[in-house]
Amino acid sequence: MIDRLNHVAIAVPQLEAAIERYRDSLGAQVSPPTDLPEHGVRVAFIELINTRIELMEPLGDDSPIRRFLDANPDGGIHHLCYEVDDIETCGSRLAADGIRLLAGGIAKDGAHGRPVLFVHPKDTNGCLIELEEAPTNI
Amino acid sequence: MIDRLNHVAIAVPQLEAAIERYRDSLGAQVSPPTDLPEHGVRVAFIELINTRIELMEPLGDDSPIRRFLDANPDGGIHHLCYEVDDIETCGSRLAADGIRLLAGGIAKDGAHGRPVLFVHPKDTNGCLIELEEAPTNI
Repeated sequence: MIDRLNHVAIAVPQLEAAIERYRDSLGAQVSPPTDLPEHGVRVAFIELINTRIELMEPLGDDSPIRRFLDANPDGGIHHLCYEVDDIETCGSRLAADGIRLLAGGIAKDGAHGRPVLFVHPKDTNGCLIELEEAPTNI
Repeated sequence: MIDRLNHVAIAVPQLEAAIERYRDSLGAQVSPPTDLPEHGVRVAFIELINTRIELMEPLGDDSPIRRFLDANPDGGIHHLCYEVDDIETCGSRLAADGIRLLAGGIAKDGAHGRPVLFVHPKDTNGCLIELEEAPTNI
């Protein structure tokens, strides 16, 4: 099932300051920031050779990362996103193993427009895991 | 400077249970566990197509991840490791920008036998970052 790390997501209190740090001090290539109002975040991507790091700042009052930042005011690693071939098969297998899925285990479109599921961090060593259906190779 | 994610390290209280979860439920390829007594950890790697996830269990009473697990008994994402071309140049540039390095900024050999430095998480949005000198392409 999981075979590729799509991205690591880092919640940050101030996106511009984080971009500056990664671009200017750590010498990384960072994409321009983009608002994702339907997901309650403003994001920028650190583009690495083999994967991407998503820097996320809360957008709007009911941003899903607001509570995380209240608990971690400096920011922190929020989740890991792995690609899977078939999100429905994956969800069923995890549920059969007694692993809890968030949002009732119903896959919905994520920030990249592909179906995603989130696994309860209590069932995966305190790590919030996003599973994203990989793009079909046509 | 940073251009490749070498690995993500996850601290876990019980390595065998974590291996089982990733191998049997998440369908990942996981390497056999290895003791690294000089680093105070027992590790196994989830081998992905594009990078690796290091599962780490404390080894010995003065393991460097013991305090992290006391604070996070279920486990959690411990650090991200990026590759850099030249660890000395990188350390100097970060220090010049006022970014704090752990262990006095002195690079020492990490778990892969290559020189590493750790950046203070207070200066990188709550994320502990390991910088590892990339293998020279000969």
